Amino acid sequence: MEPVRIMLVEDEGLLLFEFEEALIEAGFNVVAFSSGTKAVEYLRSAEGAAKGVVTDIKLSDRAFDGWEVARIAREVDPEGAVVYVSGHGAVDWPSQGVPNSIVLEKPFAIAQLITAISQLLNGRLADAST
Amino acid sequence: MEPVRIMLVEDEGLLLFEFEEALIEAGFNVVAFSSGTKAVEYLRSAEGAAKGVVTDIKLSDRAFDGWEVARIAREVDPEGAVVYVSGHGAVDWPSQGVPNSIVLEKPFAIAQLITAISQLLNGRLADAST
Amino acid sequence: MEPVRIMLVEDEGLLLFEFEEALIEAGFNVVAFSSGTKAVEYLRSAEGAAKGVVTDIKLSDRAFDGWEVARIAREVDPEGAVVYVSGHGAVDWPSQGVPNSIVLEKPFAIAQLITAISQLLNGRLADAST
Amino acid sequence: MEPVRIMLVEDEGLLLFEFEEALIEAGFNVVAFSSGTKAVEYLRSAEGAAKGVVTDIKLSDRAFDGWEVARIAREVDPEGAVVYVSGHGAVDWPSQGVPNSIVLEKPFAIAQLITAISQLLNGRLADAST
Amino acid sequence: MEPVRIMLVEDEGLLLFEFEEALIEAGFNVVAFSSGTKAVEYLRSAEGAAKGVVTDIKLSDRAFDGWEVARIAREVDPEGAVVYVSGHGAVDWPSQGVPNSIVLEKPFAIAQLITAISQLLNGRLADAST
Amino acid sequence: MEPVRIMLVEDEGLLLFEFEEALIEAGFNVVAFSSGTKAVEYLRSAEGAAKGVVTDIKLSDRAFDGWEVARIAREVDPEGAVVYVSGHGAVDWPSQGVPNSIVLEKPFAIAQLITAISQLLNGRLADAST
Repeated sequence: MEPVRIMLVEDEGLLLFEFEEALIEAGFNVVAFSSGTKAVEYLRSAEGAAKGVVTDIKLSDRAFDGWEVARIAREVDPEGAVVYVSGHGAVDWPSQGVPNSIVLEKPFAIAQLITAISQLLNGRLADAST
Repeated sequence: MEPVRIMLVEDEGLLLFEFEEALIEAGFNVVAFSSGTKAVEYLRSAEGAAKGVVTDIKLSDRAFDGWEVARIAREVDPEGAVVYVSGHGAVDWPSQGVPNSIVLEKPFAIAQLITAISQLLNGRLADAST
Repeated sequence: MEPVRIMLVEDEGLLLFEFEEALIEAGFNVVAFSSGTKAVEYLRSAEGAAKGVVTDIKLSDRAFDGWEVARIAREVDPEGAVVYVSGHGAVDWPSQGVPNSIVLEKPFAIAQLITAISQLLNGRLADAST
Repeated sequence: MEPVRIMLVEDEGLLLFEFEEALIEAGFNVVAFSSGTKAVEYLRSAEGAAKGVVTDIKLSDRAFDGWEVARIAREVDPEGAVVYVSGHGAVDWPSQGVPNSIVLEKPFAIAQLITAISQLLNGRLADAST
Repeated sequence: MEPVRIMLVEDEGLLLFEFEEALIEAGFNVVAFSSGTKAVEYLRSAEGAAKGVVTDIKLSDRAFDGWEVARIAREVDPEGAVVYVSGHGAVDWPSQGVPNSIVLEKPFAIAQLITAISQLLNGRLADAST
Repeated sequence: MEPVRIMLVEDEGLLLFEFEEALIEAGFNVVAFSSGTKAVEYLRSAEGAAKGVVTDIKLSDRAFDGWEVARIAREVDPEGAVVYVSGHGAVDWPSQGVPNSIVLEKPFAIAQLITAISQLLNGRLADAST
């Protein structure tokens, strides 16, 4: 079965590698980006190609942080799953996050990342008739 | 503000009156039917005209019971709110109900009916991006 | 339609009156108690007679506080709805509350009380197959 | 019992009046604003004074629309309840809304507004330990 | 620890194998069927033997499709977990699905299947008192 | 990435080993205890050191059973995740459990344990603004 595509945005190389490996092992097809700018270019060029986004909140890249990447992903696909990864407490999630998203504060277990993206993707159809 | 329309299906006259009155007082625009057949005719003739359905499960009317009325309502509007009213335990809801519906077992308070239909209607958009 | 019965436990006379009046207006049948001891006697003598409990947490009555009343109510009816009313922050709810309960911290609007008990009662059957 | 305070932001006079009246009847203490600017001034001057916000999305007022009012409300109180009212489909809610908010699309029944704000306020403590 | 039993119904051999392998690796005890008829025979002969069902919606087998298999499973065990697997959009889930079920649209990651069945099984008791 | 710490309390050696191994493989950092007394000592000496607790309900240890361990964990960290493991039906969970907890009744699949603790940990922040 062809896997479902998830977009991963992380500017720390080791984390990018760790998350990508875990997502692939869980059965996802991952498109990975190390900057918000590249992620946004992809989103705008390939509508709906990714069913969900896992993004770090702080991105070295000046142009777009994770909050903005997620908003653009939702403009492209209003039902897209969104998981934020945060190194510093995610205190801004209540005001900056998008609805029906999950924020994971480091440290977290890889199982939490896989469960978070799976729950949100599973909810796409499940909630379509709520 | 023009109110939102709810379909009410109840073959017991006193309950039909009681529920209609309560829904109207809560601010809903109610189209009421005393038989499943008439309700289904309306559903098929007026797609999307009602944003939700409140239906008794047992209907004297042979042709359609509440389970069938709700399935047809969801074929017309996959996001329609569905509340079942049951006099006898709703034991069949787990196998016969539609997803994201609520079943109210008599006796219940009118506030439960208003809360149930309101919750489900409020979830329509709220969950659209889950 | 005969209404559904709710147990109300509140030792402040004015609040007891205000809550009882609001619950009755919402369509509930209320059995009210001004002490935990009387409430527990009722629970033990009339199994399942009440489908839900609204209880103040602090009760002048030494023998039972609201936490204990709720635990006994759940021993009698594991599916009973439980709403706690608190004057001082409900900080102990995470450790002392029962699962699937709601705590309302004063001040709250009467609509919050009616919505809370209605939601929990509506969930009784709705969740039976989850 | 002193009621809980809700902030209402609506630039259409008739709706402002209708919503304010309904919220007061439901037991809320309402502070009403007809422009985003005035609402933001209040939020910044009176931290935590309001436990929730009901705001129209489109506000004639150039400076702040409902999306911005809600973000500022959440910066002031990360646990504040947020209900958006929308005249035109709320299509931007998935990308512009804040987490754990509800959007009501006109037409809606007044009961939906009361249920929405009550549910979110009731969830404040209930979810504090999730 | 003896594992919990899940029923798997899938008429495409490769998928049956892939899903069975993944469920077993996740710690489930799987009883697999390649036709709705055989699945229904098992359900009727072994009440409660399986705590959940994972079923394809379209089954070559004329007699029973996944919708019917799930309804029969819920008649046998009203609290059974139900996950539908769909190759073509699951557009009928809002009208044909059972309450508290999850539908997975291909393509999906194996982690979504494991999370979906686990969530629903975990909810069985968790929601017993809601 | 340094992993998140989970406390595990299980007096059956083989289960303790099985659960610990599974939690570690899922990416958690596990502190394991074979008695309630030792678990409570740790909780009281190391506030907030563990973000969640997985505890058997029945503990040979007279002093503290799983219900009590969980209440103490919530006194130390009101937002801590709590998963109960039960060999005998968890019938007391509705009256003895803490809010927003999950109870797993044996037999269960290891995936259910990992999903349960992950869901609850993921909800900590996600619900902070509800």
